[in-house]
Amino acid sequence: MNKQNIHDRISNLRQALVEQDLTAIIVPSADPHLSEYLPEYWQARLWLSGFTGSVGTLVVTADFAGLWTDSRYWVHAAEQLADTGISLQKLAPKQPNHIDWLAANLQEGDSVAVDGNVLSIAEQDRLLSAFDANDITLITDRDVLTNIWTDRPALPTAKLYAHDAQFVAQSGASKLAAVRTGMTEAGATHHLLSSLDDIAWLTNLRGADVDYNPVFLAHMLITADSDAEGNATLFIDKSKVSAEIEQNLKDSGITLADYDAIQDALGALTPEDLLLLDPSKVAVGTLSKMVDDVGFIEQMAPSTLLKSVKADADIDHVREAMRQDGAALCEFFAAFEQRLADGERLSELDVDSMLIDVRSKQPHYVSPSFPTIAGFNENGALPHYRATPESFSYLDVSEGEGGLLLIDSGAQYQNGTTDITRVVGIGQVNAEHKRDFTTVLKAHIALAKAHFPDGIASPLIDAICRAPLWQAQMDYGHGTGHGVGYFLNVHEGPQVIAYSASTPKERAMKAGMISSNEPGLYREGQWGIRIENLMVNMPVQQPTETAFGDFLNFETVTYCPIDTRLVEPSLLTPIEKEWLNNYHAQVYAELNERVSGAALEWLIERTKAL
Amino acid sequence: MNKQNIHDRISNLRQALVEQDLTAIIVPSADPHLSEYLPEYWQARLWLSGFTGSVGTLVVTADFAGLWTDSRYWVHAAEQLADTGISLQKLAPKQPNHIDWLAANLQEGDSVAVDGNVLSIAEQDRLLSAFDANDITLITDRDVLTNIWTDRPALPTAKLYAHDAQFVAQSGASKLAAVRTGMTEAGATHHLLSSLDDIAWLTNLRGADVDYNPVFLAHMLITADSDAEGNATLFIDKSKVSAEIEQNLKDSGITLADYDAIQDALGALTPEDLLLLDPSKVAVGTLSKMVDDVGFIEQMAPSTLLKSVKADADIDHVREAMRQDGAALCEFFAAFEQRLADGERLSELDVDSMLIDVRSKQPHYVSPSFPTIAGFNENGALPHYRATPESFSYLDVSEGEGGLLLIDSGAQYQNGTTDITRVVGIGQVNAEHKRDFTTVLKAHIALAKAHFPDGIASPLIDAICRAPLWQAQMDYGHGTGHGVGYFLNVHEGPQVIAYSASTPKERAMKAGMISSNEPGLYREGQWGIRIENLMVNMPVQQPTETAFGDFLNFETVTYCPIDTRLVEPSLLTPIEKEWLNNYHAQVYAELNERVSGAALEWLIERTKAL
Repeated sequence: MNKQNIHDRISNLRQALVEQDLTAIIVPSADPHLSEYLPEYWQARLWLSGFTGSVGTLVVTADFAGLWTDSRYWVHAAEQLADTGISLQKLAPKQPNHIDWLAANLQEGDSVAVDGNVLSIAEQDRLLSAFDANDITLITDRDVLTNIWTDRPALPTAKLYAHDAQFVAQSGASKLAAVRTGMTEAGATHHLLSSLDDIAWLTNLRGADVDYNPVFLAHMLITADSDAEGNATLFIDKSKVSAEIEQNLKDSGITLADYDAIQDALGALTPEDLLLLDPSKVAVGTLSKMVDDVGFIEQMAPSTLLKSVKADADIDHVREAMRQDGAALCEFFAAFEQRLADGERLSELDVDSMLIDVRSKQPHYVSPSFPTIAGFNENGALPHYRATPESFSYLDVSEGEGGLLLIDSGAQYQNGTTDITRVVGIGQVNAEHKRDFTTVLKAHIALAKAHFPDGIASPLIDAICRAPLWQAQMDYGHGTGHGVGYFLNVHEGPQVIAYSASTPKERAMKAGMISSNEPGLYREGQWGIRIENLMVNMPVQQPTETAFGDFLNFETVTYCPIDTRLVEPSLLTPIEKEWLNNYHAQVYAELNERVSGAALEWLIERTKAL
Repeated sequence: MNKQNIHDRISNLRQALVEQDLTAIIVPSADPHLSEYLPEYWQARLWLSGFTGSVGTLVVTADFAGLWTDSRYWVHAAEQLADTGISLQKLAPKQPNHIDWLAANLQEGDSVAVDGNVLSIAEQDRLLSAFDANDITLITDRDVLTNIWTDRPALPTAKLYAHDAQFVAQSGASKLAAVRTGMTEAGATHHLLSSLDDIAWLTNLRGADVDYNPVFLAHMLITADSDAEGNATLFIDKSKVSAEIEQNLKDSGITLADYDAIQDALGALTPEDLLLLDPSKVAVGTLSKMVDDVGFIEQMAPSTLLKSVKADADIDHVREAMRQDGAALCEFFAAFEQRLADGERLSELDVDSMLIDVRSKQPHYVSPSFPTIAGFNENGALPHYRATPESFSYLDVSEGEGGLLLIDSGAQYQNGTTDITRVVGIGQVNAEHKRDFTTVLKAHIALAKAHFPDGIASPLIDAICRAPLWQAQMDYGHGTGHGVGYFLNVHEGPQVIAYSASTPKERAMKAGMISSNEPGLYREGQWGIRIENLMVNMPVQQPTETAFGDFLNFETVTYCPIDTRLVEPSLLTPIEKEWLNNYHAQVYAELNERVSGAALEWLIERTKAL
């Protein structure tokens, strides 16, 4: 990135602020679908600032430019923002964020612009509640960049494809009927969906408009009355849709309209209509043509819960995808350890390329499910570290010394989405490495073997996982578990196993949900540890008691050895040791017929009982 | 209770409804202080219905009378309401409560009365949100009973007394200054306190206006400006206050006013004032003379948190009160077991009287801290059971059979408030008794030895306690822990270790808080188990790690053996067994010099290591 470009862009932006009588502009990391991964067309914050991190918010006024981002990006952001005139604003708990800054630094009568197309209703509410008291006006009806960003990339044009029918348990028509049931229960006449994974789930279609998440840009508008005209409309660039898919959609009761026609369609709603939407998943701009007095029902979309509760057949496919992924990991680890043993100098980037290589040979492979995190020693202590060609570490250790390599990776297969973290010792690991690793393992096991009431709010069980770490006055700053999609986004709701989250009934644990179990420990400047498997919520089989309600427990479905060379056995209880040995016996059973040669030898060695 | 009286009273009430053009009346179990125990003057629901349970809500219309109460009272309520014309309405999760019933059965334009003097602001909000949509009017400006309840008891007149100075660590003036700091932080000019334990704490005074809680009826109005006239006023029946106490209050900056003068004092506030109050702890009627446009700050009272965080000196006194209480319990258990061994037939009522007898001989004893629960077998399965002369069980078992007696009791001492539950085997207990008892013990131990982050919302650690029960598909329907006052209410906030509770920051765990640890298990018609100790939140001493924030753990301060004859040792882990043996070694050390004879022999026997 040429930093003079940044100066020019910010300067042009300030000129536009003057021309449009605006005091400030907010440029968030968002798109009209509030997605995790953004098409380049909506990477305005990157284009303006040169900061490549996935999360950050730029604020520009006549005499200030600042970018707020969280601790995982501070080092990179400081480098990338140096000499650009944009100051790094460190986002941290209890520190002022960009909203606080604007509320404190702007004057009564000032105007702040943010493109309504990339601003969720929920975020708009937060801005308004901060600005209203200070008589600051929020302008969301324009994209100030329109005449500045002249070489703006086009929207992506990847073709849709059907989720392979052999891996689809429920027809699109049946899913649509279930969504309509949810709409009727909520009393809605219409329902707007802008979240891409909900739309992909509902239509049983997939796309490639962004990296990692197999989704496509679209909106859907659904009427509660399935007989109404235009009762379910998919707003999408029609050039992405083959005639066959269009016909299949029509057979499911879904018709096509242009991607940009969603505003007009919503503009046709009348005050008699009641529109259900999730305010955190719909952009203000999408509603820009709606008439006043149309009623809203703001709640989680029915598809969010329906999507999270996987069918038994889906779970069976996921188990198979996990076997494939586990076999690929055996290949990777065997080769990786052999190359190190042979004295080859490897880097974090080699780990990434080797992993993609072994996974891409598996059947039904589509893509990585997120950017690989391979962090050696102090890099592993950054939970969201990503090695780049400009900045990475070699896995070098001094004679007699050792280090820890954290590898968090996953893949999209047509039969399931994977996400696994393992830690590998490089060289001679020491007692501190083992103590930390074993303590994290105890936390992982505590959650893996937990039983809990059916329907409990997911954040409430986090303490079961953390208790062994807390006992040693240790903790980690991220959540313990996120929901995982079925050949869909690796991060999906509504459940989240994180005690920092609130506990509404929408976060209830239900049978069939898939979540990660990923406690960790991060010693700044030293090393990071995280042990992550995916687990399915299952009803307790053959319960010993039935008088106290229904209980769920977890079936771990990630099959890959946990490095027992990093375990200090004296720190494990007999029950924990039993869990670990049982897990390794299962991993061996699931994988041994799928690997051969060095990979099988590696599997045999690494699944030996403690 | 003569049931014809009930018919007459309800009939008179209906007459009054007609005369006052009211459709319905709600008679809750509440007073102007939203207290747990009500003076007789405010026991209108009992007087009208004859139902003696502590919690219940009566609704009367022209052709309906119903009383909503929860499951612990259903059996008694059914008996007491029989032939009164009042129907028992079973209050249960997901079942309609009285508000739902009124919203469903009343018509547009109807009016519902509830005495504003016994209705919290928070409860009024719930009523209004249910009634507004149906155009039902809520009338809170009158007590419809005024002309009906002609023999209404007078308000209590017990004299105030000072909390013994040797047990008071902080002066009233210092507490008042701390409350003012909280007011200033909130931006309040005035603060209304109606909650009696807050007022008793703030003034270092105690009273005897109700059973169990050593409090007195009063309100307080405090200005943020300590130099203002009337800057802190205690509204109280002045005949309760000695000249010495009045002078001491004056020296602390607190002046007296009549109990009934609070409305006028609030009526003098102006729109420039900002009144801080806790909407769940202030009655609507108290505010009846306020002018419109006075601003409110609705939040927890500053004293609620200040009161919950005990000073080191207070905690030392509590430890001593616990030794006294433990010694009394040794006396009780030794005598109780001897009388049973001698073949004497004892009942649940005997347990209560024996406990009061041994405790009342201890120094600084004041009263029981709540009604003793002594529940044998199926009675123990009712978590809030109370034996009465009209209904109780003898501790009879058949030859070769056994049962479980649950005893939950506590006392108010000037140097501390106690609350303890123990379960005793009667006769030959069986393997099921032991399995249940041991599983509850595992849960108790899990919480007792837990470490957790300083400041975590208290409901989030409940899962640590319940995990061993959940593992066996067991659970219990009440909270795991409540806050406990220091020679004050045995139930106090803000912390509550209960996963059913919400997780606002006000419920954060802080060092110095005292909470109960009381997991249980209730088999309907068979037996109940609960093991309860009190614990103090303590900073972790000599932490092994300091990089991951500050951690708290619990110091158990209840000293009384847990019956190891009910423990199945094979179900305990080595760590759990170690906890139990350490606990019993400590109980022996704390108590052995305080008891003698049979009580000492009992202590020695019951604290033997497993």
